[in-house]
Amino acid sequence: MASPLTTLPRPTFAAPGAGSAGSPLREHYDAVRRQTEHLCAPLQTEDYVVSSMPDVSPTKWHLAHTSWFFETFVLATHDASYRSPDERYAFLFNSYYVQAGERHCRAQRGLVTRPTVEQVFAYRAHVDAAMRRLIDRVGDDRAHPAHPLITLGLHHEQQHQELLLQDIKHVFWTNPMRPTYRERTPTPQRVTESRWHAVEEGVHRIGTDGEGFAYDNEGPSHRVFVEPFRLATRLVTNGEYLAFMEDGGYQHPELWLSAGLATVQEHGWASPMYWERTDEGWTEFTLAGTAPVDLSAPVCHVSYYEADAYARWAGHRLPTEAEWEVAARGVRIEGPFVEAERYHPSPASVSAEGLSQLYGDVWQWTSSAYVAYPGFVAAPGAIGEYNGKWMADQWVLRGASCATPRSHARLTYRNFFPSDARWQFGGIRLASGA
Amino acid sequence: MASPLTTLPRPTFAAPGAGSAGSPLREHYDAVRRQTEHLCAPLQTEDYVVSSMPDVSPTKWHLAHTSWFFETFVLATHDASYRSPDERYAFLFNSYYVQAGERHCRAQRGLVTRPTVEQVFAYRAHVDAAMRRLIDRVGDDRAHPAHPLITLGLHHEQQHQELLLQDIKHVFWTNPMRPTYRERTPTPQRVTESRWHAVEEGVHRIGTDGEGFAYDNEGPSHRVFVEPFRLATRLVTNGEYLAFMEDGGYQHPELWLSAGLATVQEHGWASPMYWERTDEGWTEFTLAGTAPVDLSAPVCHVSYYEADAYARWAGHRLPTEAEWEVAARGVRIEGPFVEAERYHPSPASVSAEGLSQLYGDVWQWTSSAYVAYPGFVAAPGAIGEYNGKWMADQWVLRGASCATPRSHARLTYRNFFPSDARWQFGGIRLASGA
Amino acid sequence: MASPLTTLPRPTFAAPGAGSAGSPLREHYDAVRRQTEHLCAPLQTEDYVVSSMPDVSPTKWHLAHTSWFFETFVLATHDASYRSPDERYAFLFNSYYVQAGERHCRAQRGLVTRPTVEQVFAYRAHVDAAMRRLIDRVGDDRAHPAHPLITLGLHHEQQHQELLLQDIKHVFWTNPMRPTYRERTPTPQRVTESRWHAVEEGVHRIGTDGEGFAYDNEGPSHRVFVEPFRLATRLVTNGEYLAFMEDGGYQHPELWLSAGLATVQEHGWASPMYWERTDEGWTEFTLAGTAPVDLSAPVCHVSYYEADAYARWAGHRLPTEAEWEVAARGVRIEGPFVEAERYHPSPASVSAEGLSQLYGDVWQWTSSAYVAYPGFVAAPGAIGEYNGKWMADQWVLRGASCATPRSHARLTYRNFFPSDARWQFGGIRLASGA
Amino acid sequence: MASPLTTLPRPTFAAPGAGSAGSPLREHYDAVRRQTEHLCAPLQTEDYVVSSMPDVSPTKWHLAHTSWFFETFVLATHDASYRSPDERYAFLFNSYYVQAGERHCRAQRGLVTRPTVEQVFAYRAHVDAAMRRLIDRVGDDRAHPAHPLITLGLHHEQQHQELLLQDIKHVFWTNPMRPTYRERTPTPQRVTESRWHAVEEGVHRIGTDGEGFAYDNEGPSHRVFVEPFRLATRLVTNGEYLAFMEDGGYQHPELWLSAGLATVQEHGWASPMYWERTDEGWTEFTLAGTAPVDLSAPVCHVSYYEADAYARWAGHRLPTEAEWEVAARGVRIEGPFVEAERYHPSPASVSAEGLSQLYGDVWQWTSSAYVAYPGFVAAPGAIGEYNGKWMADQWVLRGASCATPRSHARLTYRNFFPSDARWQFGGIRLASGA
Repeated sequence: MASPLTTLPRPTFAAPGAGSAGSPLREHYDAVRRQTEHLCAPLQTEDYVVSSMPDVSPTKWHLAHTSWFFETFVLATHDASYRSPDERYAFLFNSYYVQAGERHCRAQRGLVTRPTVEQVFAYRAHVDAAMRRLIDRVGDDRAHPAHPLITLGLHHEQQHQELLLQDIKHVFWTNPMRPTYRERTPTPQRVTESRWHAVEEGVHRIGTDGEGFAYDNEGPSHRVFVEPFRLATRLVTNGEYLAFMEDGGYQHPELWLSAGLATVQEHGWASPMYWERTDEGWTEFTLAGTAPVDLSAPVCHVSYYEADAYARWAGHRLPTEAEWEVAARGVRIEGPFVEAERYHPSPASVSAEGLSQLYGDVWQWTSSAYVAYPGFVAAPGAIGEYNGKWMADQWVLRGASCATPRSHARLTYRNFFPSDARWQFGGIRLASGA
Repeated sequence: MASPLTTLPRPTFAAPGAGSAGSPLREHYDAVRRQTEHLCAPLQTEDYVVSSMPDVSPTKWHLAHTSWFFETFVLATHDASYRSPDERYAFLFNSYYVQAGERHCRAQRGLVTRPTVEQVFAYRAHVDAAMRRLIDRVGDDRAHPAHPLITLGLHHEQQHQELLLQDIKHVFWTNPMRPTYRERTPTPQRVTESRWHAVEEGVHRIGTDGEGFAYDNEGPSHRVFVEPFRLATRLVTNGEYLAFMEDGGYQHPELWLSAGLATVQEHGWASPMYWERTDEGWTEFTLAGTAPVDLSAPVCHVSYYEADAYARWAGHRLPTEAEWEVAARGVRIEGPFVEAERYHPSPASVSAEGLSQLYGDVWQWTSSAYVAYPGFVAAPGAIGEYNGKWMADQWVLRGASCATPRSHARLTYRNFFPSDARWQFGGIRLASGA
Repeated sequence: MASPLTTLPRPTFAAPGAGSAGSPLREHYDAVRRQTEHLCAPLQTEDYVVSSMPDVSPTKWHLAHTSWFFETFVLATHDASYRSPDERYAFLFNSYYVQAGERHCRAQRGLVTRPTVEQVFAYRAHVDAAMRRLIDRVGDDRAHPAHPLITLGLHHEQQHQELLLQDIKHVFWTNPMRPTYRERTPTPQRVTESRWHAVEEGVHRIGTDGEGFAYDNEGPSHRVFVEPFRLATRLVTNGEYLAFMEDGGYQHPELWLSAGLATVQEHGWASPMYWERTDEGWTEFTLAGTAPVDLSAPVCHVSYYEADAYARWAGHRLPTEAEWEVAARGVRIEGPFVEAERYHPSPASVSAEGLSQLYGDVWQWTSSAYVAYPGFVAAPGAIGEYNGKWMADQWVLRGASCATPRSHARLTYRNFFPSDARWQFGGIRLASGA
Repeated sequence: MASPLTTLPRPTFAAPGAGSAGSPLREHYDAVRRQTEHLCAPLQTEDYVVSSMPDVSPTKWHLAHTSWFFETFVLATHDASYRSPDERYAFLFNSYYVQAGERHCRAQRGLVTRPTVEQVFAYRAHVDAAMRRLIDRVGDDRAHPAHPLITLGLHHEQQHQELLLQDIKHVFWTNPMRPTYRERTPTPQRVTESRWHAVEEGVHRIGTDGEGFAYDNEGPSHRVFVEPFRLATRLVTNGEYLAFMEDGGYQHPELWLSAGLATVQEHGWASPMYWERTDEGWTEFTLAGTAPVDLSAPVCHVSYYEADAYARWAGHRLPTEAEWEVAARGVRIEGPFVEAERYHPSPASVSAEGLSQLYGDVWQWTSSAYVAYPGFVAAPGAIGEYNGKWMADQWVLRGASCATPRSHARLTYRNFFPSDARWQFGGIRLASGA
């Protein structure tokens, strides 16, 4: 264990609010990069290494890949003097950008013990130094072509902050020791009654209007006709979902898509992911360890199949993404997100009026398949692979979750997962005909 | 081989136009049932038995399953005296209707040698006799509740007529002997130039209006907003697709969906299904045997991935199903279909003006995922499993193919297949922004 | 169904004893070939086509492959004028002889509908005609090099006669209709008590001595030292095996090899293959249909894992192949075998003294792995692939079964199957230390 | 990273020769346990965690499992006051002893990040303290029932020392960074010519005679008849194996077992494991990193299939285990083994006369399947699962390798691996008829 690197200090995991000198872009950069490392503070070295299923990447990989992104899409073009600390990193930490060169097999990400965690942090520091030099050089020039790429890189990194949390949760779950990420003291709340928010029929414009940052898949802005509909003012709770379970929801074929029923039977699903039945009732594994299921909190870690079956059981349906966006337009994004150390969906507060829990609790499955908006064309080159090439066999989720950085949430965000994915923070909001 | 059944006559495979006495429903019934058996005329006993891949059902099974459908959804309710010739048939020939009872594993359909082909034809005759008695009893009473179920059963059977053809084609292809289903003499044609059919933006109503038969998934009728667009007047040809291949289409990652690229690489796809490269150029396996690829004929047996990649390469895109339906409204369905012994897509005729090749050549992939129309609710009971439970991870195809019975084609028809399916008669029609 | 071949007569399935003119070799040839076809008499055309699992070959394939063997290893060398009816047959009907050219994938044998059954019988007749001409030419010249190859081909065909029966049994079992191959009237018998046949220690010579036909793997003859041991005078019965089951035999890990326990758990094994528990007790599927388990008959269709676990439970062990052969030397092979229409193991007769049931009931698992005898070298060329290349991860079974032609059984025969194979007619004879 | 455990010292990785007070058993215990930890000295924390394939266990697991062995089979019975530091360790670190209780799935061993490496070392220290107390209490009483179990535990741990090395080699190989375990300076040598060591025919006694430690599978001692044979005086070298490769050895089907050929083709094997072809010739990955293949060193990391094919190509064969043992009887075990920091097979020294390289370079594949010796009965209880339950579908390897502790090697040792295993240090010694 006499590694030369063990004498190097790990990052201090400073809180993201810590001071940063310079341009707004520099402050943005520093805050986001610090926050990623801050999320690692509770981890042991061993925790960074493993991948508990093919969908899950090691923490170490998230830390490195987000740095590779800046290296590849910003520094390679805008800093001729930049040198990578190890040329093999480009191979190891490219996720899926075919046009950016050969890459390591995703299934083997969890088998790579070197570079060590220390070396990965050193890699981050190396990239940070170069990025800060670049930002200090171009930071005030908003027209500089590096600007949008740096901003994209920061949103990319925020997306990985959520992935890091949902992945480490699964790593801990896989371990019979069931480690705890961070302690918390739950504060039970009374949940408000769900009401319907009605929207008139009409032609609406959805998608990004070009103000503020958005991914390419959120545009172009375009018109849709929406028949009259109603959207539930809050999310479906664990208590409501438990009623579905106790009514034999998982056993009634007529409630399920065919592939959903096959998945339920193949995996023996009988509850949301992370739930376990004990002698004292249902428990839920969380980033704070195992706890009794909070019946007032939104149900989380359900697949599209389960969301769809629940909605059918309830006599309603899931909203389309257009319905969600039309209804949510104008609602302010607020509340304590990841920066404030919350990683658990919470009950709708008693004072909630109008639509609540849109952002900050769970992503909400829609009945819209993830396909291109009319007129969408992916950007040329490797960066165009970010979103476009995934437009098959996935569903759009809207809103944001308790693990989403607040500054990363927005009205037009199109998150997407396949029908059977459950390890992300995904839940249910009902819709209904007019 | 001294089977007692070999002395029973096989059906005479009369042409479907042969006389049938009685009500229009009786004539309809007789014509459809006869046509199914007529399609079997070129087959040897051995051909009826096997399943060459999990998607393919044995001919014997198609013959029996379509009879089971009448037995289960019509006779069981409307003919108290009806008895099945063998109670185990209900288990063997239920395809996927969970609510209609236990069923044989799909993967084992091709392993069942008994009932023999003779016995299956006898089963059909048994069902036919009961059905004809029932129809003669209720045929003139259009309000009788059996009426819509019988009509549904006939459309179901017509759907299986196409499946039977696409399945036996695959069975023959799997055999190194490459048997021929039916000889033909191809008549090469000059293909017309493709033009654009332009449609203005606006709110349109799509889906079945309740006139004439439609499946449940074709409704409810509802409004959509369609941005201005253009639809190609004819299908993409083999010649055009070959240009894509020769331009390295299968090798350029930027043209492909991520899952599409993985599929191409996993299976080594380098051309449409059934194509083979020989010293004399590309050949295509058809129901008439192996023949040189007809460059003027529509490309067929491509997956969604390939259709999507081709469209991107061509600088255009696939139409949505709404665009297809809006553009195709008013075009008459005509031309020689299965009843006239054609099982090959043909070049657009030189006289074609306006939209051509909508029906009767190849199903046309759309960029619309197969999801429920607003307000769709599946029928109660097992019959509700017909369409609704497949609404995930599939794409809508529109039009009709050379294997579709003419009387089964219609404007609002929503055929659907997963992204990688190629053994059906599926091809490409391009669309473009206005 | 208007196949030109349907007018051709199927073979008359004459009993094998029917007259045959000519040399002893010609009589031998005719008898074996006739017997193969005689075994097909109860089958329908559909039964010939399918393969119910990768280990099982279609009847049609057995019929053709045994003919291909003569074509490839005899006619190709010794009849310059011979022409195959179809050159593709060499590809379709080569089982595994890599040096004899490319061959069809084993997993696809059951997907090939053409050549039809009629055509395969015509293929046999074509080969028979050429073979008879050849035999009539060389039949009296025992030194002619074709002689040993023809004899090998006949033993090969007899081996396939047993495979044909064990395979069609599995095909019928796979079918929920559970067809019957041939009716029988079981005659229950009282089983004799099992005793021990003791053998002294010593150096013994085992393996073929060159008298009479033997496969290459039965030699060279060589010496082995055998510690003193005892061999059970009869086979383990169904009744005894049932006692093992009822004592929780399948649930006690300490009785099982590790891979055996994993296999038992993966497949849910709780009895021999073909057994089913009903309200009236255990039944067994046989070539005569489903019948109550005959407690006095030898247990059959058990894997090596089960034979080994049973022996451990009984406080004994399986014999080595050397022990089996040393003990069995001198015992006459007799009794009604396949030629006499028996396909079921029978209880040891009450008059049995000394070793009984060595041949004609079930193959007997030994504790000897199937490896080469000292000095074994495979023959050069493709024919050398017959036995030698299988010498890994299999066990030797000795004796013969109720499906083995009597003239194919012999003292030194080394049958072999992997640890988990159960569809062959395999059972248990116990051994013990002195 | 503020783990409370990071302040605990890791073991000092003292050399195994360091002093130890007390009885010979205590010295033995201390030396073996220290050596295991000494082998970990070059590793980073991350290296301890992963499993690069199902056969490979994490270093962390080896460290814990060997301690669990003492806990379960010694302390549980002989120290009533002993308490495990965590009751869940019994679940996590039981390898395969079904009778010792439920156990963690082998496939998930590499997914468990906690207990951390520090905690595992603490676990070892905890077990060591209890074991030392026990040994100090019973050490002089050789008749105490704990004695043989402690000795078994130490041999078990030495076996895992070799597994640890062969596993970490694979972990490093899987990593594109190709880390180095320990540097070395290879000293090329001239290899001696191989000669034949002849042995007369006769009855010999093999297996343990009860003197000194042996595993249960090495007995009972029993007699075998061995035909006259010759054994090569040294191992097959890389240079000789390369000649086989260059002669198309991997392409000639007649050299291969059928399953071997399938394995070669499925995995694309064209050389021993860890070899790579570069522009400068063949290289080999070793625990000292990648180096040119030393043509004079023994070939290593070949499967049984390759050993068998090589022997056939060379016109010889592999020895049986009886032949190996009969020939090797009387040869002294000496030479620098693991304790002396060698982990690489070396050329036979020029002075070699008689049989050389029996122990200390590579395990030698025999043609003997791993089955029970006559009269073998596994010990009752979980400890009986150590060897007996693996007696199917494996081959015996004899001798010892460069990674085997010298004090763990012995004449009668029966190592065993399946036909396709290559990651162990396994090579080839030829045999021949007299």
